Amino acid sequence: MYLSFSTIIEILGTVAFTVSGAFSAMQKKLDAFGVLIIGFVTAIGGGTLRDVLIGNTPVSWLRDITVPMIILVTTIITIGFKKHVDNLKITLLVFDALGVGLFTIIGIQKGLAIDLNPAICIALGTITGCFGGVLRDMLLNYIPVLFHKELYAIPCITGGICYIYLRRVADQQIAESVSVVVISTFRILSVRFNWRLPRV
Amino acid sequence: MYLSFSTIIEILGTVAFTVSGAFSAMQKKLDAFGVLIIGFVTAIGGGTLRDVLIGNTPVSWLRDITVPMIILVTTIITIGFKKHVDNLKITLLVFDALGVGLFTIIGIQKGLAIDLNPAICIALGTITGCFGGVLRDMLLNYIPVLFHKELYAIPCITGGICYIYLRRVADQQIAESVSVVVISTFRILSVRFNWRLPRV
Amino acid sequence: MYLSFSTIIEILGTVAFTVSGAFSAMQKKLDAFGVLIIGFVTAIGGGTLRDVLIGNTPVSWLRDITVPMIILVTTIITIGFKKHVDNLKITLLVFDALGVGLFTIIGIQKGLAIDLNPAICIALGTITGCFGGVLRDMLLNYIPVLFHKELYAIPCITGGICYIYLRRVADQQIAESVSVVVISTFRILSVRFNWRLPRV
Repeated sequence: MYLSFSTIIEILGTVAFTVSGAFSAMQKKLDAFGVLIIGFVTAIGGGTLRDVLIGNTPVSWLRDITVPMIILVTTIITIGFKKHVDNLKITLLVFDALGVGLFTIIGIQKGLAIDLNPAICIALGTITGCFGGVLRDMLLNYIPVLFHKELYAIPCITGGICYIYLRRVADQQIAESVSVVVISTFRILSVRFNWRLPRV
Repeated sequence: MYLSFSTIIEILGTVAFTVSGAFSAMQKKLDAFGVLIIGFVTAIGGGTLRDVLIGNTPVSWLRDITVPMIILVTTIITIGFKKHVDNLKITLLVFDALGVGLFTIIGIQKGLAIDLNPAICIALGTITGCFGGVLRDMLLNYIPVLFHKELYAIPCITGGICYIYLRRVADQQIAESVSVVVISTFRILSVRFNWRLPRV
Repeated sequence: MYLSFSTIIEILGTVAFTVSGAFSAMQKKLDAFGVLIIGFVTAIGGGTLRDVLIGNTPVSWLRDITVPMIILVTTIITIGFKKHVDNLKITLLVFDALGVGLFTIIGIQKGLAIDLNPAICIALGTITGCFGGVLRDMLLNYIPVLFHKELYAIPCITGGICYIYLRRVADQQIAESVSVVVISTFRILSVRFNWRLPRV
């Protein structure tokens, strides 16, 4: 039961990130292979960086073909649906916010599993949730939006602190679900109301 | 005998990629150290990324000084020969195509050696063959040509499928050689006739 | 005693690199989180890349929260002091030069500890000393200054050769200190007199 919940988390997050990566790539007029790779890197980049940093190798998408297959199918569907992109803006935002939330909690769990300091685990979770987008922007030759434009990391850190607290006092699935909702909602509100960190 | 064949593969590929990286760096007017590093990253970037992803560390160029020495000597020779670059365009293309083919097959073999799924092995081979060029372009502040301009990955995937099939039905050296020839030829034809993937 | 000397080395280097990264990020008008991440990547990027390449995982800043805490505090102080930046140019240069020197020697020591070839160890040291800056420039969407503008690597290689020699004939702390001074002095002189490598 728990395993399957965790698996659903991963599939949803993977789909969400692939879609957002593929759309960024299409805006830069890449070819079909470029769109696939950017979708792929956006989806698995954060988790791959986390796995490499903690030494969890071969990294997970090498060991299980499910995730690469989901990304491939999602990219093909995304390319097919691209005409409808204007109608999907809200959906995409929700997908993206959900993905950020889900991956952050997975990243925190991987850190806790090897007894890292909880503050470090929150950093690992934030890397898992956000650095797929950083790699996407580096490949597309932008300064990562994470660093100057969009509020991704603060929701992750906030939800991460929730999770670290809740897992001590509540059921595991409740802790996970509440934290994902906190991150996703914070992220969606930050886009809706255009919240930004001050430039310094 | 087999070992030495594999070694020759690696040396040829390393020289080819170093030359192509060094020329890209010289076009951007980097200094001698920059040219060396870009040549180095182009030559070992794909294999290093593969080694890091599968956990094959210390990565191979750290354990054997032969490859770094070949890259150093090749860079010095390339800088010396740069005036003749216009006469070497065809040679460079053949070098590059051969390098892509050779590294792809080496990458697939490393994946098979740790029992990864054959489709994942082809992805690993494509990373080995192509991502030195991606890192080169990232360092030189381009959107990687792999994603929008040049047909590198499709030849790798095609040759990779050949190799996965041929190694089951033919001699190992024949399987390797045929697959490298398939990738190199496909790559050269794609440049000659300016084949591209459609933008989406 | 030796441990504490080595620890002081690491703290000083970390502060120096964080400051230089944070200032680069502020010049690009990033937000507070972006400044923190660029400071962080500049400080730990070289060492992290080295740890990943040699398979020393979880990488060191995941295992000990001291370094991330130093970076966080340094970034906050740097943001607070940013109005005084014009008065700090010389201090920043000395910090940066010291950081490059210190990290290079630490990197060489990590390579020697796993019996890598001394020439490879010097390359590892140079990566440790210089590639935080390369990652910083990649994230800020520049061609790394290391490759065309500033003389970082030659001082590292020179000091690295000193260290490899001195550690065989002199006390460990003397070998370390002299090599760090060689690298830092060479770096400062190269800025003061605008030394550059020829473009090719």
